[in-house]
Amino acid sequence: MLALVSPHVDEAFMRIALSLADSPRACILPNPRVGAVIAANSKIWGSGFHRGPGNPHAEVEAIRDAESKGYRDFSKATLYVTLEPCCHLKKRTPPCAPLVIEKNFSRVVISTKDPNPEVAGKGIKLLKKSGISVDLGCLELEASELNSAFSKNQIQKLPYVILKVAMTYDGKMADDFNSSQWITCDASRSIVQEIRARADAIAIGARTFDVDNPSLNARLPGETLKRKIILFGNPKRRISTSKAAKSNGAESILTLRSKTPLRAQIRQLYLKQNVHSILVEGGAKLASSFLASKLVDEVILFYGRGFLGGRGTHGFFQTPMKASLSKMIPLRVVETKLINEQDVMIRGFTNVHRTH
Amino acid sequence: MLALVSPHVDEAFMRIALSLADSPRACILPNPRVGAVIAANSKIWGSGFHRGPGNPHAEVEAIRDAESKGYRDFSKATLYVTLEPCCHLKKRTPPCAPLVIEKNFSRVVISTKDPNPEVAGKGIKLLKKSGISVDLGCLELEASELNSAFSKNQIQKLPYVILKVAMTYDGKMADDFNSSQWITCDASRSIVQEIRARADAIAIGARTFDVDNPSLNARLPGETLKRKIILFGNPKRRISTSKAAKSNGAESILTLRSKTPLRAQIRQLYLKQNVHSILVEGGAKLASSFLASKLVDEVILFYGRGFLGGRGTHGFFQTPMKASLSKMIPLRVVETKLINEQDVMIRGFTNVHRTH
Repeated sequence: MLALVSPHVDEAFMRIALSLADSPRACILPNPRVGAVIAANSKIWGSGFHRGPGNPHAEVEAIRDAESKGYRDFSKATLYVTLEPCCHLKKRTPPCAPLVIEKNFSRVVISTKDPNPEVAGKGIKLLKKSGISVDLGCLELEASELNSAFSKNQIQKLPYVILKVAMTYDGKMADDFNSSQWITCDASRSIVQEIRARADAIAIGARTFDVDNPSLNARLPGETLKRKIILFGNPKRRISTSKAAKSNGAESILTLRSKTPLRAQIRQLYLKQNVHSILVEGGAKLASSFLASKLVDEVILFYGRGFLGGRGTHGFFQTPMKASLSKMIPLRVVETKLINEQDVMIRGFTNVHRTH
Repeated sequence: MLALVSPHVDEAFMRIALSLADSPRACILPNPRVGAVIAANSKIWGSGFHRGPGNPHAEVEAIRDAESKGYRDFSKATLYVTLEPCCHLKKRTPPCAPLVIEKNFSRVVISTKDPNPEVAGKGIKLLKKSGISVDLGCLELEASELNSAFSKNQIQKLPYVILKVAMTYDGKMADDFNSSQWITCDASRSIVQEIRARADAIAIGARTFDVDNPSLNARLPGETLKRKIILFGNPKRRISTSKAAKSNGAESILTLRSKTPLRAQIRQLYLKQNVHSILVEGGAKLASSFLASKLVDEVILFYGRGFLGGRGTHGFFQTPMKASLSKMIPLRVVETKLINEQDVMIRGFTNVHRTH
């Protein structure tokens, strides 16, 4: 075998760390998704990832894993970690940078700095001060995207917003008969359950709540997760007997009726209600409000069925003002998926939150 | 190496024949796209494809290719051909089935019958009568899709219709300011040139003709192809000085202003004007007419830029009647392509024309 060039080796191990970081099926906010790999001479000694609040950090998991396999001397090993090791003491778990120093690692490769401007770089500084060689920026874009929700929380003190829309190929969310037919196929709707698990709250408009009476929990294979429900407007349906209340608990439903601007409302959700990420599920009015207020970070579009036609009243994004191509909300697409020759899923970002 | 199982060998060679069949960049209608491979003992002796009217058929090309490499005795060879060899004498080229018999092939593998109901199966019958072993149906769906335009012509005596739409991710073709900005990126617009080459006529509405003054030729790398232009409605712009006339020749522009139903109009184009396939390029009114009249066979959607919003007046498919999910025009998607993280191309079929 040819000797591998170092940047490629670094990327290969970091890719594994990134994939580990993304293991948790559910939202682990307010914590970041982090993965770590310990390697020496192109061999993996140990790996780990952070499972969420109250659980050990990825670095600790990786060190424990390596030690459980009999590795003790890390002086010739490299630690790959997708986020800068922490140095603060405010957490339930001990800080990682001092542990990395104590374990005598000679080199640490890091994808991204901590996005919180008050701590960014301090963990790295600590490592460097103790003589550890630190390389920053390996697969930085991928790592930033993985923690775009965490970054938004840290930097803007706002929940991360994912907009999900299911529509026909001509962009319509419904027909003129309030038909209850699904636009997308079963397989697409299973993906929606996974997306729900990734957010900690689901936003829905009163009309959709009244008409569809959706459960709004995340039904994963082998596990059903309750979500917080944010109900916008004045529903006619009784909340306590709704499927959403039965599935998630009546206390999980927060109703928002205020005339306060949307941005201020969702900031309050972040600051007072522990809402770190919101999946906006519908209908068109709510989707349009979030888009027009420039509050959407990530978009997951499902196009399905075919072409509906009609008189232009069921477009998924409608605004009262004149539309201008020069003032569009841009989309950077990162993923497309063809599902059963029937639906197409498109995932992209409207705002990009880099960690620095 | 393991001995390959025969159906897999057949599919492997037929896949090569299919890929050869699809070589011509430009429309070769009224003729079908056909490819042929001659193989024996898992080795390719020769291959060829049909280049269009007046050129040799794929079988002839493949036999010539094999003979030029010194092969003479085809009695142990198999001929793979994507369409049933012809047996009629009305063409400029001699019929292929008698040639295949004359060359003493022991086996012929065919994807699809000739879609023309008057000739379908006659070539196969001729081959079988002379003792050749014939297998029909290898990669039949792929071969049918490749010649969906040819089949439509043969069976329905109508041009094949491809609808191309470029729109925002919320399904709008234009904004409220008649902005001349492109919705899609350069790379997508190059793909549109290739799509134009594949049709023999481009349909456009008078308003788009007036506002955009498009050239409507097919600008391929190293080659620019003239197309027939079908202009619907009453243009204000003088045709003789339009870019479309300059690029394609004034005689290439056919104007249609009649109140006759669209289906009857395009049948006349097929019967009287040698129009075998039409690419409908815009605007929304023309696209909507073709869709609503169920005249569209294939759809190529480009989603680009982002989200426009507006008051619902620029949807690409609008109809005066109430919209009903149960009466939608279905789309079977066969291809998606992410272009520069910006645009998504989706290709699919609304009607499927099988060759039998």
